[in-house]
Amino acid sequence: MDSETNTQDCLGWAATDPSGVLSPYKFSRRPLGSDDVSIKITHCGICYADVIWSRNIYGDSKYPLVPGHEIAGIVKEVGSNVGRFKVGDHAGVGTYVNSCRDCEHCNDRVEVNCEKGKVITFNGIDLDGTVTKGGYSSFIVVHQRYCFKIPNNYPLASAAPLLCAGITVYTPMMRHNMNQPGKSLGVIGLGGLGHMAVKFGKAFGLNVTVLSTSISKKEEALKLLGADRFVVSSDQDQMKGLSNSLDFIVDTASGDHPFDPYMSLLKTAGVYALVGFPSEVKFSPANLSRGMKTLAGSVTGGTKMIQEMIDFCAAQKVYPQIEVVPIQYANEALERLVKRDVKYRFVIDIENTLK
Amino acid sequence: MDSETNTQDCLGWAATDPSGVLSPYKFSRRPLGSDDVSIKITHCGICYADVIWSRNIYGDSKYPLVPGHEIAGIVKEVGSNVGRFKVGDHAGVGTYVNSCRDCEHCNDRVEVNCEKGKVITFNGIDLDGTVTKGGYSSFIVVHQRYCFKIPNNYPLASAAPLLCAGITVYTPMMRHNMNQPGKSLGVIGLGGLGHMAVKFGKAFGLNVTVLSTSISKKEEALKLLGADRFVVSSDQDQMKGLSNSLDFIVDTASGDHPFDPYMSLLKTAGVYALVGFPSEVKFSPANLSRGMKTLAGSVTGGTKMIQEMIDFCAAQKVYPQIEVVPIQYANEALERLVKRDVKYRFVIDIENTLK
Repeated sequence: MDSETNTQDCLGWAATDPSGVLSPYKFSRRPLGSDDVSIKITHCGICYADVIWSRNIYGDSKYPLVPGHEIAGIVKEVGSNVGRFKVGDHAGVGTYVNSCRDCEHCNDRVEVNCEKGKVITFNGIDLDGTVTKGGYSSFIVVHQRYCFKIPNNYPLASAAPLLCAGITVYTPMMRHNMNQPGKSLGVIGLGGLGHMAVKFGKAFGLNVTVLSTSISKKEEALKLLGADRFVVSSDQDQMKGLSNSLDFIVDTASGDHPFDPYMSLLKTAGVYALVGFPSEVKFSPANLSRGMKTLAGSVTGGTKMIQEMIDFCAAQKVYPQIEVVPIQYANEALERLVKRDVKYRFVIDIENTLK
Repeated sequence: MDSETNTQDCLGWAATDPSGVLSPYKFSRRPLGSDDVSIKITHCGICYADVIWSRNIYGDSKYPLVPGHEIAGIVKEVGSNVGRFKVGDHAGVGTYVNSCRDCEHCNDRVEVNCEKGKVITFNGIDLDGTVTKGGYSSFIVVHQRYCFKIPNNYPLASAAPLLCAGITVYTPMMRHNMNQPGKSLGVIGLGGLGHMAVKFGKAFGLNVTVLSTSISKKEEALKLLGADRFVVSSDQDQMKGLSNSLDFIVDTASGDHPFDPYMSLLKTAGVYALVGFPSEVKFSPANLSRGMKTLAGSVTGGTKMIQEMIDFCAAQKVYPQIEVVPIQYANEALERLVKRDVKYRFVIDIENTLK
């Protein structure tokens, strides 16, 4: 085993400084433990978190840094205690790869809220003290609890974005009962998260309105994503027409934006789920209190719900809209993501391009 | 009947201009309809709403304006359709006296959210077009649906503040399951609403922490109101010690205050109920999203819950702390309320002093 740890047999792409520019980088993964699954990565989605940490935006980046937390691939080895997976199974890994497995939240399988802090998939400190490295790499070794089964009939490239973008909107939608057919949903922001909220909304039988700052996304929102209505949020007449009409809102916008105009669209007892990270949230209390509305925060989800979501997507044929790119395109893809020039999620074809 | 409408047999105290100064004023109530209850008012609580509208702070005051929406008294007459009340019963009236009685929310007996707009108890426009006049008066005529039974063993003076202050905190506490014994509650602000939140919290078996800007309220909070802990919110060490420790917060403060320091006190999945009206709500989204917290707005409650709350208070012997004052003291009481110099609710002794 010791020899394995010294073999730098994992090929990745890493940022080495706050420029965030990625380049090939060889490193070792930990030896397979008895509860571990080793996954040959075939695909990895590109999330805005990859930009944040490769560029040290939060000031806590540990270089060399291998990003990527929307991981899909094929099981290549399993530890002696692993019963859920066998070699050849399709599997995914999301935004965290460890947790204490002992606290109230871990016991509830909402490990994302682990009291001792979940171990994030890259740039995290694992229980053994090593820095985690993400999915822009040829394989990954993860405790089975944080691996998910991807049904064989679900494309691995499509599965990747479910592991962060998908679960981030699925979790608050399920938690706040946004899966009641016939109810109405507003989706703010139409990026990786927002387009999944539209797709889940339609799969749940909701009437979905996309609220966007730009008319340019209208055709695709309606025809490609299946939204029922598209409203430009700067159009005050359109917004007025929507007043008190929505049961739910999922706000995926991370840019700064006003909240009052959107909150006034909610019906009595409406729920506004916030999954984006603007610099602040600011609104008039009357827009929350009159009509007893609720503003709910959420970040990704627990392992139980992740598996449930994947199975739901497979059963209901819910697929993210993806643009598959080679690893050699990663730097340009990150640049385009910063400029919001992506429809709607980049997925790196690791299997065929990372050599 | 017609002659009755022209008889100015109701004696009240009214503000006549935006100075808000109250003085005696005679007016007529509508003739008793078949579904109406006429209540001889014995007590009326003084709420900050009385200040707001008597002083035209929202710019929509209609003078002469008779304030008061925490009304308790004795039934003196009932209409032919009224079965729930009989002459001599103790009865109360809260913040609204009418609604459409036909919409989804009225049908759910959450009339406070009536789609056509509830008719507020004073300074409102009733269904017949007249301006409603509140409880700083000798009697009131109200549709039976908006009258509540006050058990004979519950003092009428104590019942009055339940009708606004009480239900305003009781509603979000019940709606968000804050009645689970052993859970922890933080109460921000210790005025009319806040002190009731403490009392309900203790009656529900919660561990109650009062969060206050001033140490001066500590003794009373602990000894008189029964809180378990008192924390001065400007004391960063104390606040740090409370980090991630509270299941619920009820924020009754209407003055402007930061939200982030309080939100960080909530545990994972914690609920923060906002019932005050600061000029804005502003916080960092991470304080909501990490730990999947919820911020919930609320204003008073529906008729079903109001009756439930009164019955709960009678059964559990929950009584507001009141300072009973004569109507002649009303102007000074309103001034003291503005200065927050009240422990914890003024109640006007209408029966013995309004002559």
